[in-house]
Amino acid sequence: MAAPRLPPTIRWRGSARSGRLELLDQTLLPGRLRVLRITNVDALVDAVKRLAVRGAPALGVAGAYGVVLAAQRRLRDRFLPRAETALGEETLRIERARPTAVNLALGVRIARRAWVRGLRGPCPLEAAARAALAAARRLHAEDAAACLAMGRHGARLVRSGGTYLTHCNTGALATAGIGTAFAVFVMAKRAGKRIAVLADETRPLLQGARLTALELAANGIPGRLLPDGAAGGLLARGRVDGVFVGADRVAANGDFANKVGTYPLAVLCREHGVPFYCVAPTTTVDPGTPDGRRIPIEERDPEEVRSLGGRSVAPRGFPVCNPAFDVTPARLVTALITERGVLPRPGRAAIARLLRRR
Amino acid sequence: MAAPRLPPTIRWRGSARSGRLELLDQTLLPGRLRVLRITNVDALVDAVKRLAVRGAPALGVAGAYGVVLAAQRRLRDRFLPRAETALGEETLRIERARPTAVNLALGVRIARRAWVRGLRGPCPLEAAARAALAAARRLHAEDAAACLAMGRHGARLVRSGGTYLTHCNTGALATAGIGTAFAVFVMAKRAGKRIAVLADETRPLLQGARLTALELAANGIPGRLLPDGAAGGLLARGRVDGVFVGADRVAANGDFANKVGTYPLAVLCREHGVPFYCVAPTTTVDPGTPDGRRIPIEERDPEEVRSLGGRSVAPRGFPVCNPAFDVTPARLVTALITERGVLPRPGRAAIARLLRRR
Repeated sequence: MAAPRLPPTIRWRGSARSGRLELLDQTLLPGRLRVLRITNVDALVDAVKRLAVRGAPALGVAGAYGVVLAAQRRLRDRFLPRAETALGEETLRIERARPTAVNLALGVRIARRAWVRGLRGPCPLEAAARAALAAARRLHAEDAAACLAMGRHGARLVRSGGTYLTHCNTGALATAGIGTAFAVFVMAKRAGKRIAVLADETRPLLQGARLTALELAANGIPGRLLPDGAAGGLLARGRVDGVFVGADRVAANGDFANKVGTYPLAVLCREHGVPFYCVAPTTTVDPGTPDGRRIPIEERDPEEVRSLGGRSVAPRGFPVCNPAFDVTPARLVTALITERGVLPRPGRAAIARLLRRR
Repeated sequence: MAAPRLPPTIRWRGSARSGRLELLDQTLLPGRLRVLRITNVDALVDAVKRLAVRGAPALGVAGAYGVVLAAQRRLRDRFLPRAETALGEETLRIERARPTAVNLALGVRIARRAWVRGLRGPCPLEAAARAALAAARRLHAEDAAACLAMGRHGARLVRSGGTYLTHCNTGALATAGIGTAFAVFVMAKRAGKRIAVLADETRPLLQGARLTALELAANGIPGRLLPDGAAGGLLARGRVDGVFVGADRVAANGDFANKVGTYPLAVLCREHGVPFYCVAPTTTVDPGTPDGRRIPIEERDPEEVRSLGGRSVAPRGFPVCNPAFDVTPARLVTALITERGVLPRPGRAAIARLLRRR
């Protein structure tokens, strides 16, 4: 079984003035390793929309670097207010490239605020670009550190000899570090626990089959791949000791959106008394979204369902329902695991306290 | 959207002595219409194993015709007891080609008993082959009639304007008639009810995308295809008025096995107060299986999950868990719909009464 060394998911190369963003093109994995060299906002928006880069934390970091790309285009502007408007418009396009993961908008806003604050001195646009890059690098480093912390906290909930199930991809490919839910498996292994991981293939885009399987192999963690519909039978037969998933947005009351197919797992876990954990950095918690019903759910291209691996599998033009995410209510979550620790039964008050510690 | 006229799923051509079994090769749908001409047991076993013919009732009828193919090979035998042994061995191979759907074994046994009873007169092996063919044709006709009856009974539970969800394929392609669960949609439409059908794509072999979508189009029933993981979110948002599924085996206590991914739907239906119906002819009810835990669950080839159409979608050789079925406990079934009527909350006593009416 191939266990390739993967290039970094996201990397900034060069200076704020003339650097570029490098993204590992995840649409081609596991078959091909190709690094995209992103030098402008259009290319970034395209990469985000077609999921060349995906995963809430990775989107946040990519969005922040996107502001640096926008800032580069403004370097020759003479009239500052026009530069501000133009950068605002450009970066709004990044923010809106995908609606559900709150990190994307957050990453863009953090770097944009840094850019605005950086507008000073004799070369304000250069200083602002440097400030945006510094903010993006800080977010990048913070995300990597948060991954390690989430992994450490979550690994305490894992027992040696246990079998854990996950959905979609939440590893290094979804973050700027070792992952969210996947970090739990990595850190459990580093702590010497022998675990096995069941990976839902995660239709329609097969992030489980294409990415999580690859990362399990790369990390030497024993894993098995399964069709999404098979998890229920395994839970019913007592074959799963816990489920760990990531999140694209956690609402203020603890409801969260994650890859479609997550919600059924939560209901099945409760049915069978199996712990169900949501693992996400506090950057994924959005106090501006009161509950799960307010999380916008992206509806994606029908062709993602009508074809598989580039081959048509359904009658041409047949109507499709293809929501990218579903919402899991907080009452089904055994604990929310963030970089700040384990929050059992996350509710509105507990989450407000968690965020105040920011 | 293409809505092709499909050839019959199963057809016997010619006499008992020299006829052949024709099967529409379902592995090539929806892209290609190809009819397999099956003239011996080996070819039938191969077709069954690779799911060229599938669906519990269709397997039963195909198995019965398979006995006729076995009987043809025995026509020149001189020593009757040896012919009986040989036919027993040949037909056991058909019975065992797939373990879960009870109809396959039942169909084989019905035709084999007819063959044994037919061994009389001056040309006993010819008479027996004719008897086996007559039994297979009778089963074929009974299955078609049962489909109509199930459809009529189930259609009463459907309201005009409603949206109903189904899993896998249970239409004409899965039976010798208009289907089991799918027959409900056909008969509701014939009764003038406007319904819409949500079809789970049904990984790994995509019977929903490839076959049910085709049958919805062919029957002029508005439908939408969705990834299996998306059903939960739709149920949570009140978008589904009922779920109708087929069965591969119903145990004596009402538990039933059906395509993997059925059990999660049943749990989700109860969570959201949505009716969950199992539609199956009484031939699928197996009084010899006391409960769901005793139903053998077929584990299929890992490549079904790792690749599609020769294209790999996961790391080569990555371990896979690929159970073809899961078991839904009777307590989650709103009603079992058979050709004899609607059995609310099916339990051991009610099912025993149902079978006594045979």
